[in-house]
Amino acid sequence: STAYVEALRDALIPRHELWFAYTMNDPAAREAAASSLRRLVNLPFEADDIHLTTGGFAAIALALKAVADPGDEVVYSLPPWFLYESLVLEAGLVPVKVTIDPATFDLDLDAIAAAITPRTRIVILCTPNNPTGRVYPAATLQRLAAVLDEASARTGRRIYIVSDEPYNRIVYDGAAFRSPLEFYPHAFLAYSYGKTLLAPGQRIGYLALPPAMPSREEMRDAIRTLQFATGFLFPNAVLQYALPRLEELRFDIDLFQRKRNLMVDALREIGYRVSRSEGTFYLFPESPIGDDEAFVRILAERGILVMPGRIFETPGYFRISLTATLETIEASLPGFAAAFAAAAA
Amino acid sequence: STAYVEALRDALIPRHELWFAYTMNDPAAREAAASSLRRLVNLPFEADDIHLTTGGFAAIALALKAVADPGDEVVYSLPPWFLYESLVLEAGLVPVKVTIDPATFDLDLDAIAAAITPRTRIVILCTPNNPTGRVYPAATLQRLAAVLDEASARTGRRIYIVSDEPYNRIVYDGAAFRSPLEFYPHAFLAYSYGKTLLAPGQRIGYLALPPAMPSREEMRDAIRTLQFATGFLFPNAVLQYALPRLEELRFDIDLFQRKRNLMVDALREIGYRVSRSEGTFYLFPESPIGDDEAFVRILAERGILVMPGRIFETPGYFRISLTATLETIEASLPGFAAAFAAAAA
Repeated sequence: STAYVEALRDALIPRHELWFAYTMNDPAAREAAASSLRRLVNLPFEADDIHLTTGGFAAIALALKAVADPGDEVVYSLPPWFLYESLVLEAGLVPVKVTIDPATFDLDLDAIAAAITPRTRIVILCTPNNPTGRVYPAATLQRLAAVLDEASARTGRRIYIVSDEPYNRIVYDGAAFRSPLEFYPHAFLAYSYGKTLLAPGQRIGYLALPPAMPSREEMRDAIRTLQFATGFLFPNAVLQYALPRLEELRFDIDLFQRKRNLMVDALREIGYRVSRSEGTFYLFPESPIGDDEAFVRILAERGILVMPGRIFETPGYFRISLTATLETIEASLPGFAAAFAAAAA
Repeated sequence: STAYVEALRDALIPRHELWFAYTMNDPAAREAAASSLRRLVNLPFEADDIHLTTGGFAAIALALKAVADPGDEVVYSLPPWFLYESLVLEAGLVPVKVTIDPATFDLDLDAIAAAITPRTRIVILCTPNNPTGRVYPAATLQRLAAVLDEASARTGRRIYIVSDEPYNRIVYDGAAFRSPLEFYPHAFLAYSYGKTLLAPGQRIGYLALPPAMPSREEMRDAIRTLQFATGFLFPNAVLQYALPRLEELRFDIDLFQRKRNLMVDALREIGYRVSRSEGTFYLFPESPIGDDEAFVRILAERGILVMPGRIFETPGYFRISLTATLETIEASLPGFAAAFAAAAA
């Protein structure tokens, strides 16, 4: 948007001699992010809890490195974001995947509990979930916290949550987003500005610590040190200076909600089984034929680009992104209908 | 500079809908970097040899991860850049430090040869050297290549060079810079734009492969994959778009050479022992008293900020940066004289 470009162009005008010098965790940027996070998540985050990173990937990578030792296990639910596995493996850790409740896309807490071993160190959550659009409810997060407390006590080693929340400002129907950090203090919040600003190439996000995290000061130091030692995972100076203005830009949630409703209603009318995403700008319908990759090709022949569920280790589904314009989405509906008919034939 | 700011402000104006989308190794940026590198280093680099990174730290971190396995040894000479150790340790590798020739600041090839074990996988070089200002001569690099070829044959495992070259465009007296890559194809070139543009907070650099590197295609793939898996170590989109114009900006080498000469001549007249840097914007004089940290404090009392040799694991020296203006440098000379007198007293 114009406001986005103007904010960054303005941040490029040097205010002092050291404007482009090494810039790590610019205090005004941290405070703007903490203030925004306090409004979203009902916890008293401080500016120093915010570790500015080159986007969400970097925030997750830092959290993994901060608490896990090589060989530790990292549990996450399918369908996962497709780069969790490579981030986990590159950190020298072991991915352990569990399924979700296929009817509701909610976390399967029994499956998580059963996957925990003495080597489990981290559970990664993504809420609102990419690709399912599920926003995990408070009751689920509360029970998960109890499961992890109990398991940590049993194994004698604290299990941490890494909460991957790039969509935490994209929640529909006025629903309240609840962060896992509200329920469990041994948790990290990874955020990226790429989604709400629709500018993922610009690489700014953060890793936040909750106020109640034990040894929070030591953890802050450890993360700052890791930001250097893993390749200087700080965002560039200008993005940091622009952050207070970027925080003020509004994502047009109403427009995306209209797109979601339009698409869900139309798909259901055609005959697709699809749940109404509670958040994110994704839908995750069932493929009308078992082979989701074949169905993605059928859609592609009609000019519709979606991702097969197999990429998310969840065959039989596909992911629709609603970032196209309302007009483009409307224009795609006949193609979705024709593809459904072709698949049925 | 104004031209720098203008180049970036211009790159912020979107040319198409996906201007701020995920941007990895923008082709025009790669080609601009490869073309510039072909002029500097007499090797036929291709655009695909350039892996754009969030600065030099990230480039070195990627090279370490690309070829070394946990527990492998990484050899480098003292004084090192002060973050080699944390980059090496964070990659799960073992730092092995060797001394240099204290009279010439040249590499001590015998010391390097003696440090090699069957676990040695990488030798890091920094040329022109921060902090000594030494530019390693062709003959030294040629002999180093022979040492590493011989050692690799002996251990049965190839030893790689990581050539850390953020100052390779900052060489004085018309001297020719020679990259280690010209002499040894199992080598990576890590570059940062932060130094010549005096904008280290902006986080853009690259890791380049030499055309003669064996299995270059596989190495390109491995590095691109690592860029994701270590936290998305790609520079932000706008910096990538600006790169062709940033490559055209000239570093005022004459000004820095005047600063170097002024400072070296004045320091020597006062009584300091200091070699005339061949490159970089640093000088690395001997401390007139053994305790370089005490001497740094004596200088600081006179308003002069330098770094003690101890930070570079080389006690008895200190590092001067010539990034201040010529006027500031001239104004500092009485302080250097007074500190020398105070140290002698």
